[in-house]
Amino acid sequence: MTDAPAPAPLDPDFKPRTVHVPLGERSYDIRIVSGAPEGFGPFARSALEATRAGRGCRVALVITDANVEPIAEPFARALTSEGIAIETAVIPPGEASKSLDQAAALLDRLIALRADRHAAVVAIGGGVVGDLAGFVAATYARGIPLLMVPTTLLAQVDSSVGGKVAVNRPAAKNIVGSFHQPIGVWIDTETLISLPPRELRCGMAEVVKYGVILDAPFFDLIERDATALLTLEPEAVRRVVARCCELKAEVVSQDEREETGLRAVLNFGHTIGHAIEAVAGYGQGFQHGEAVAAGMVAEARLAERLGWIDHHLTDRLTRLLHHLGLPTRAPGLDPSALRDAMTLDKKNRAGRIRYVLPRSLGQVELTDAPTEADLIAVLADLTTPDR
Amino acid sequence: MTDAPAPAPLDPDFKPRTVHVPLGERSYDIRIVSGAPEGFGPFARSALEATRAGRGCRVALVITDANVEPIAEPFARALTSEGIAIETAVIPPGEASKSLDQAAALLDRLIALRADRHAAVVAIGGGVVGDLAGFVAATYARGIPLLMVPTTLLAQVDSSVGGKVAVNRPAAKNIVGSFHQPIGVWIDTETLISLPPRELRCGMAEVVKYGVILDAPFFDLIERDATALLTLEPEAVRRVVARCCELKAEVVSQDEREETGLRAVLNFGHTIGHAIEAVAGYGQGFQHGEAVAAGMVAEARLAERLGWIDHHLTDRLTRLLHHLGLPTRAPGLDPSALRDAMTLDKKNRAGRIRYVLPRSLGQVELTDAPTEADLIAVLADLTTPDR
Repeated sequence: MTDAPAPAPLDPDFKPRTVHVPLGERSYDIRIVSGAPEGFGPFARSALEATRAGRGCRVALVITDANVEPIAEPFARALTSEGIAIETAVIPPGEASKSLDQAAALLDRLIALRADRHAAVVAIGGGVVGDLAGFVAATYARGIPLLMVPTTLLAQVDSSVGGKVAVNRPAAKNIVGSFHQPIGVWIDTETLISLPPRELRCGMAEVVKYGVILDAPFFDLIERDATALLTLEPEAVRRVVARCCELKAEVVSQDEREETGLRAVLNFGHTIGHAIEAVAGYGQGFQHGEAVAAGMVAEARLAERLGWIDHHLTDRLTRLLHHLGLPTRAPGLDPSALRDAMTLDKKNRAGRIRYVLPRSLGQVELTDAPTEADLIAVLADLTTPDR
Repeated sequence: MTDAPAPAPLDPDFKPRTVHVPLGERSYDIRIVSGAPEGFGPFARSALEATRAGRGCRVALVITDANVEPIAEPFARALTSEGIAIETAVIPPGEASKSLDQAAALLDRLIALRADRHAAVVAIGGGVVGDLAGFVAATYARGIPLLMVPTTLLAQVDSSVGGKVAVNRPAAKNIVGSFHQPIGVWIDTETLISLPPRELRCGMAEVVKYGVILDAPFFDLIERDATALLTLEPEAVRRVVARCCELKAEVVSQDEREETGLRAVLNFGHTIGHAIEAVAGYGQGFQHGEAVAAGMVAEARLAERLGWIDHHLTDRLTRLLHHLGLPTRAPGLDPSALRDAMTLDKKNRAGRIRYVLPRSLGQVELTDAPTEADLIAVLADLTTPDR
């Protein structure tokens, strides 16, 4: 099966500023700063000028949500300083905004602006804003430039790299979408200060995921810096965000459209995690990161049942997630409803459920080896109340 | 400005069967036959097996419309013979079906089928079916394989090549879309027999367009074979369809995503043609091909005003369109409404209207040279009743 790529080794002292995402003519930069929104203007202009469509861009639709709006203004002003006229669309916060109806309303805003294909979309917010704004940018006039300012930890380490944009349908999450790479991503770790603590913790679940799937020394570093991360010590946060982006860029650049199976390694914790979200109801009970945290533990237990890892790794993962304030179970959910939801997973092939499971810390494999009995046992454990 | 590419010269006696569309890993074949629907099964299977996503495909959603449904059945049966389970969605005929709502209903059909990303979408019908089904295939699970069986002349010579898929919004046609190449296109000229004569004539407008923009000898051939084409003489039709696909493939392979301006040459007649459709009301008064026919004449007159061509070329174009039963004017439409509609054209840059205008028979250029006065004069002429 698919092996994970071998990333450059981690330097625990590195002070990152820019991560380059190498995707041929769709390559772009991620700039990582702390407290410098004014820099976004020149960064955006330079990213726009480097692309055919963005050259001479004079108008942009900024898409944000009502929670993020108060901190979005300095970024929007930075664009105005570059001679880009801004229109701002403020969507309701929450997963319900990731709908075709909301996308249609934003597409109509672009039409009303008489935006041509040289206009830009600027997403300022978390994953919902990024996915929705990205879908709008991907489909308006068959694709216009997209700039992203992710303001949650989850969006910074996850949606910054990969170009996956999507909206939901009532019966399936992220089922309608596209691959549309941004032309530039601006990450300011100060945007995390106003983030509810729960959202910050959710982002940590994805951070931990990168350690498990690709980079054992990075897992060690997260264990070491866990407290500094939760208190938002700027250098610790920048280092972790940059490392996650580097690791994800390594994977995505080798499998941009999720075709070879390589990119699937990013789905560790997500096969069961998505089912937890779907069964609990999107945005109800479980945030995405919480569902992924519990999903990672459950999937680690599946790997134990295959004899791939022993319980010490699962225990270590569970302890780190607890330290970061994340759930490791989904008590009370219906195991058979979870199983049913998993049959819709996009990784599936010919009706078999496929998982990404750890072989060791820092290495995972895509597999359909777990039996129905394995899954039933693990889901039973997952849904049992904490003892 | 952009010059048209130099296609291989036309052999008036060639008997084409397959046109290859060279787009790197997105390359595909167009097979052109007369009265052989059973061949579609093996063709589709082979096209599916040649792609990563299509390998082992076992389920397909056939999308057709109520007019085409009676002739779609043999093609669907050919897939069943290859072990592909078929579900058929029949949409209402007409431009109104090219909506996000209709797309959402089809996406939900795929969800209900529990389609994974190895399922296929099969479009059997004209341009509306192809554009809508293509948009569904482009966005379901971020893109699944698309097979096309275009059943109108317009779809055969236009939508078969290019990968442009889209739906409309109330205020703008084709504004929401994507580039999504089919994995194979099956053209059976016998599907044209049941086509209303008006639809056949509409397709002829695009055929004539290829002669004007790229291939003077092909324009001669259309003049010579006009009657054989209108009576659907199989060999004449196959030759013309194949030549149009070849010419379009030549352009598209050099500018897949309409970035260099080269692909814009295909828009001759469409800047004004789209405005005619929009102002008359989509599907009201003017079919797409009729609007393009009148648009080509109006744009040829713009080229005359620039001194690029003399009136003999416009007269020859007008005569051929008349012979083919196509309109060359849009009497009664409001010229200022037409002008207004043209400002939304996707070719526009920095607010300037851009046109594709003939330099000579077989050669066109993308230009914003016409003045407001030129446009007003030409629109006044276009909208004056026939004398």
